[in-house]
Amino acid sequence: MTSRPYNFSAGPAAMPEEVLEQAAAEMLDWHGSGMGVMEMSHRGKEFMSIATRAEADLRELLAVPAHFRILFMQGGGLAENAIVPMNLSRGGAVDFVITGGWSQKSAREARRYATANVIASNEADGHTTLPPAAGWRLGKDAQYVHICSNETIHGVEFHELPDLQALGCSAPLVIDFSSHVASRPVDWSRVGLAFGGAQKNLGPAGVTLVVVREDL
Amino acid sequence: MTSRPYNFSAGPAAMPEEVLEQAAAEMLDWHGSGMGVMEMSHRGKEFMSIATRAEADLRELLAVPAHFRILFMQGGGLAENAIVPMNLSRGGAVDFVITGGWSQKSAREARRYATANVIASNEADGHTTLPPAAGWRLGKDAQYVHICSNETIHGVEFHELPDLQALGCSAPLVIDFSSHVASRPVDWSRVGLAFGGAQKNLGPAGVTLVVVREDL
Repeated sequence: MTSRPYNFSAGPAAMPEEVLEQAAAEMLDWHGSGMGVMEMSHRGKEFMSIATRAEADLRELLAVPAHFRILFMQGGGLAENAIVPMNLSRGGAVDFVITGGWSQKSAREARRYATANVIASNEADGHTTLPPAAGWRLGKDAQYVHICSNETIHGVEFHELPDLQALGCSAPLVIDFSSHVASRPVDWSRVGLAFGGAQKNLGPAGVTLVVVREDL
Repeated sequence: MTSRPYNFSAGPAAMPEEVLEQAAAEMLDWHGSGMGVMEMSHRGKEFMSIATRAEADLRELLAVPAHFRILFMQGGGLAENAIVPMNLSRGGAVDFVITGGWSQKSAREARRYATANVIASNEADGHTTLPPAAGWRLGKDAQYVHICSNETIHGVEFHELPDLQALGCSAPLVIDFSSHVASRPVDWSRVGLAFGGAQKNLGPAGVTLVVVREDL
């Protein structure tokens, strides 16, 4: 029995106590290697095996198909607001669906690198409803369409991802799924790139998960 | 008495055992807060106090003057090879002194963002000697001069930083001091920006230290 509180400090999910206990127990000696994780060479076989295992576990947990790459990045979800348009806008236009503070922030940052068009917004109703996908003014030449699939500040969540192909749009869908990743299955057939800061639902602050279709 | 080996896996310095023991001991409860560091909000007062203290301790240890900022970055020293020219080259030329593999790598990356001129090189002698600063072909319009103050691969080290002002050059000196930071005093009056991946001499892989003069 423990009197320890549940800490939801950085997001919707708490860190399991067993994980912290294991990290503490292995701090001076990981699997009999004579060193803890923080002492390992980041290129050594011990650490590489941890990274490979983490990727494989995450791929299984999120049922990520083989034609997607899993990247462990730094800089938080906020850095992805720059990294995604820098890599995927190809100097063209990108489409944003605004459903709250996080998608607004993403669109604002994307404007530094691309023409970011707002193709739907729930701003008029105070970010309380989801603009139906059938009404999105999808750009003909958009390089991708960005949504935040769960807006933690304003409370609007996509329970189902939009099917852009069914709407006649061939652009890839980019989702910021920071705050509900690993709480439900993802329909990867509708996704081009997904990103999430780990601190919300996956682990400690400092790592960002990016799952990206190989052709992108 | 311990039979634990000294681990120099990621660089010249080993992680002190006391540090690992403290990290393990505080993993589930930091200073009676009821949470470990990995559970804290990265914006909460507990974590902010840790970050503030780390900066103050490092400032004292390295005797960093008040007109320099201390930044804890991500991406390793390699990311700084891009971040520094992107921020300091101002679309102009930058000067590189090549003394081994690391400065070569830095110059190669800088060429993606700026005109990177090699103003001295020890390549002809297999990177075994230090080209005397008096012979550097310093550019009149260089935005900065880059050196790697300790080349771990080829073994060439600056025991003293060059005095660019004495050479009639007003450009700031940028030093990659990853592998000997905290092993000796730094003459900050000769430095504009210093960077180092923490894993070599300061801590675990994942954090990069940047010390930068405020006016830059």
